[in-house]
Amino acid sequence: MVSNQFFVNKGPFPLKKIVSLIKCNTDPVKIVSVNISDIKNLYSAKKNDITFLNSNKYKENSLKTKATACVTLPNFSNLLPKRCIKLYPNNVLFAATQISKLFYPKADIDYPDQNLTNNKNLKKKYPKVFFGENVLIGKNVLIGKNSFVGSNTIIESNVKIGQGCFIGSFVVIKNSIIFDEVLIQDGSKIGVKGFGFIPSPKKNIRTPHIGRVILYNGVEIGANCTIDRGSLSDTIIGENSFLDNQVHLAHNVKIGKNCMIAGQVGFAGSSTLGDNVVIGGQVGISGHLKIGNNVKIGGGSGVVNDLPDNSQVMGYPAIPLRAFVKFRKKI
Amino acid sequence: MVSNQFFVNKGPFPLKKIVSLIKCNTDPVKIVSVNISDIKNLYSAKKNDITFLNSNKYKENSLKTKATACVTLPNFSNLLPKRCIKLYPNNVLFAATQISKLFYPKADIDYPDQNLTNNKNLKKKYPKVFFGENVLIGKNVLIGKNSFVGSNTIIESNVKIGQGCFIGSFVVIKNSIIFDEVLIQDGSKIGVKGFGFIPSPKKNIRTPHIGRVILYNGVEIGANCTIDRGSLSDTIIGENSFLDNQVHLAHNVKIGKNCMIAGQVGFAGSSTLGDNVVIGGQVGISGHLKIGNNVKIGGGSGVVNDLPDNSQVMGYPAIPLRAFVKFRKKI
Amino acid sequence: MVSNQFFVNKGPFPLKKIVSLIKCNTDPVKIVSVNISDIKNLYSAKKNDITFLNSNKYKENSLKTKATACVTLPNFSNLLPKRCIKLYPNNVLFAATQISKLFYPKADIDYPDQNLTNNKNLKKKYPKVFFGENVLIGKNVLIGKNSFVGSNTIIESNVKIGQGCFIGSFVVIKNSIIFDEVLIQDGSKIGVKGFGFIPSPKKNIRTPHIGRVILYNGVEIGANCTIDRGSLSDTIIGENSFLDNQVHLAHNVKIGKNCMIAGQVGFAGSSTLGDNVVIGGQVGISGHLKIGNNVKIGGGSGVVNDLPDNSQVMGYPAIPLRAFVKFRKKI
Repeated sequence: MVSNQFFVNKGPFPLKKIVSLIKCNTDPVKIVSVNISDIKNLYSAKKNDITFLNSNKYKENSLKTKATACVTLPNFSNLLPKRCIKLYPNNVLFAATQISKLFYPKADIDYPDQNLTNNKNLKKKYPKVFFGENVLIGKNVLIGKNSFVGSNTIIESNVKIGQGCFIGSFVVIKNSIIFDEVLIQDGSKIGVKGFGFIPSPKKNIRTPHIGRVILYNGVEIGANCTIDRGSLSDTIIGENSFLDNQVHLAHNVKIGKNCMIAGQVGFAGSSTLGDNVVIGGQVGISGHLKIGNNVKIGGGSGVVNDLPDNSQVMGYPAIPLRAFVKFRKKI
Repeated sequence: MVSNQFFVNKGPFPLKKIVSLIKCNTDPVKIVSVNISDIKNLYSAKKNDITFLNSNKYKENSLKTKATACVTLPNFSNLLPKRCIKLYPNNVLFAATQISKLFYPKADIDYPDQNLTNNKNLKKKYPKVFFGENVLIGKNVLIGKNSFVGSNTIIESNVKIGQGCFIGSFVVIKNSIIFDEVLIQDGSKIGVKGFGFIPSPKKNIRTPHIGRVILYNGVEIGANCTIDRGSLSDTIIGENSFLDNQVHLAHNVKIGKNCMIAGQVGFAGSSTLGDNVVIGGQVGISGHLKIGNNVKIGGGSGVVNDLPDNSQVMGYPAIPLRAFVKFRKKI
Repeated sequence: MVSNQFFVNKGPFPLKKIVSLIKCNTDPVKIVSVNISDIKNLYSAKKNDITFLNSNKYKENSLKTKATACVTLPNFSNLLPKRCIKLYPNNVLFAATQISKLFYPKADIDYPDQNLTNNKNLKKKYPKVFFGENVLIGKNVLIGKNSFVGSNTIIESNVKIGQGCFIGSFVVIKNSIIFDEVLIQDGSKIGVKGFGFIPSPKKNIRTPHIGRVILYNGVEIGANCTIDRGSLSDTIIGENSFLDNQVHLAHNVKIGKNCMIAGQVGFAGSSTLGDNVVIGGQVGISGHLKIGNNVKIGGGSGVVNDLPDNSQVMGYPAIPLRAFVKFRKKI
């Protein structure tokens, strides 16, 4: 059994079982004896893992994937290595969700942690940590020395928090790895399930979220923010990046180092940001975008395209700053 | 005495008392012996209720209202049945607020529930419900079997929650009816008083909020959302509709079935949405709009007009998607 | 020792020490014997205080400042009184932050209040206040009669709350002075550290936030709002101004009387608003702006310029309403 820190992997499963679950046709010779250990994204999948490919935006990773099998569309088959077994279901994302639920049946909902305790032994167990009142801590939680945990905060099982961190009040941290000197202000929710599901009348089918949130050294998260954990990959904020209040990060977003993200900014899922990016207040970033290094995005902008390194943009939709200024003068 | 589940109705009151409270002139013959039981909206008012009409947008309901009396403007009198007694105060909304406060003097502020208990008998009282730590539950709360209530969550008196629901941590639920298999993520506040008042220098006059929040089967509410209860009608989310994090619903908003509403979307008061509507992140919906079925609204849009079934719009203000794409090319 | 209510002032310090800390050159005769008591903004600085000036927008206050010394740029020296000792470091804001940290070493992070208690003596200590369950109160907290404090709420040391206030659940109040009849709804965080720092690769340098939040009589704050305290001055909301849910106020924002601010509005730092201002939902207000009295700002607008009294604007960026309507017709 392979397992990650937060969700129990019920695998391995025979590929045959998966093929029949997602109802697709494949060369039966190939699948007869293969066992699948886990479902991963293209990049992190290893031998005996299954992955999925639903867009030609990920060519770079897909051609190099080490996955043994991949759920995809027939016309993407040439974006995958020859040795990779291709499965062609009717709906790639639905099939990926079905497989993910097979391996991780408890990751599609935030089941409450049943191991939280608020006992007087916290001080004994974590002698170098300061705790406020009514703190609830799960099992196997590590907290580094000189860290502060504010009153009424919940840290769920298996979370790791580094040294010199400041966690405010009314914070929830779950499914997360937090490095040193991270500051999280009051009311933020870190590691919650993202907004991922296969729409279906009567009852949507929720995507398991087995990814984590990773906050590197020196990250700051403002008050009342929401940081969703990843679905198959992780949600990541790089070293020394600061987020203001009421920022929303959807699943799988990756933010580089030294970024400054002002209040009420929202990220849709799976976008990546380079280093030293500055984002003004209330900006919206669409999903699956690649924003380069040293990019500056003016307040209120709506970014719907990839942005190369050093771009400066503004507007809704965001355009180069010069074009925006020119356009504005015309009005 | 007529009463709703959450607020005590102090009526009935003689219509004469109401007329003198709101300082308006009416044919004295008509009002002499009438008693008024309750204040309701045009649609739900019955015989012996009073209602109000302040716009010609509601013709359909106003002509059919069963209310015995209606606070309105003289030039809307022909939008009401003949037998309905019309009252013409100086300011319709102010008068409606005065009457509402007469019937429901405790609904203009969220008075803290004085019946919350966090006793060890929760397990005994609700043997088939899972409770986290420090859960506070009011009087007469019903919770269906196989539901989960996360740590530190508050469920106020008279709330009803169905079976198989998942309520996260730091959630407040008040003045709400929640059906089966509803999921509410951490930090959301459901059923709070809306943003309604008669502006007045020195001291605004708050509108009583006697409506409820109703979440039908399978609804999902993301983290740190705010769902205001209705003022005179209810705030409603239909079956299988999903809201992402940090969504804000103002009072009386009605959302249909199978809708998908992305992060940080905001609704002003009293707008209605059809079924199968998809709304991108950070969209704003103005008040009192009627959005049809199967509508798609692009991320960041500001919707200021009614939208017919099957529309696709984007922009600020939102225009048909084709026009938006064309306009964008011009820039 | 000079001190404010919430942060201990470690001064006075010899000006000589400050000059050497921020590494700047100054006429040594002048500084030899001067002691500096505190760091304040241009307006509130008194004799023996130090202040800073980094923009020519504040001429009005800078020429009248009573500060003994000022950190500034050489070309702003004529905007300051002759008797004021000018210090010219390489980076004015960095130097101001260094000095602020010298006087107030504990104000750059929200250190958890170590004096919170949840004892059964609350009723004895505040016999005329209603408390919900699990309320945590710090030292020297004053709460006026007939005020309500909802369950699970935290009020940190030295906070003052007036009479007849309603504080909801899951609220944090710190570094704040709250007058009478103020209403704060569930989940709002009042007085948190703002988003202020000197960007620096590897480790940003946080600006101390020694200002307060001041909410005057009759203010209403909706649910899940975030109100940052000031850095050097205060964050202020005037009498009878109402904020809807999920509003974000950055440090030093000043709002006048009788304002109405709808849901999800965001203010960047240090902007000021006059009286009777009406702001629609999701509006963004840039930093350091001056918005006049009786201004109306349409929903979704992005305000990037000062606005004179009685303006009506809409758009992104916001332009006069008439121009916006004309422009919209062209599309």
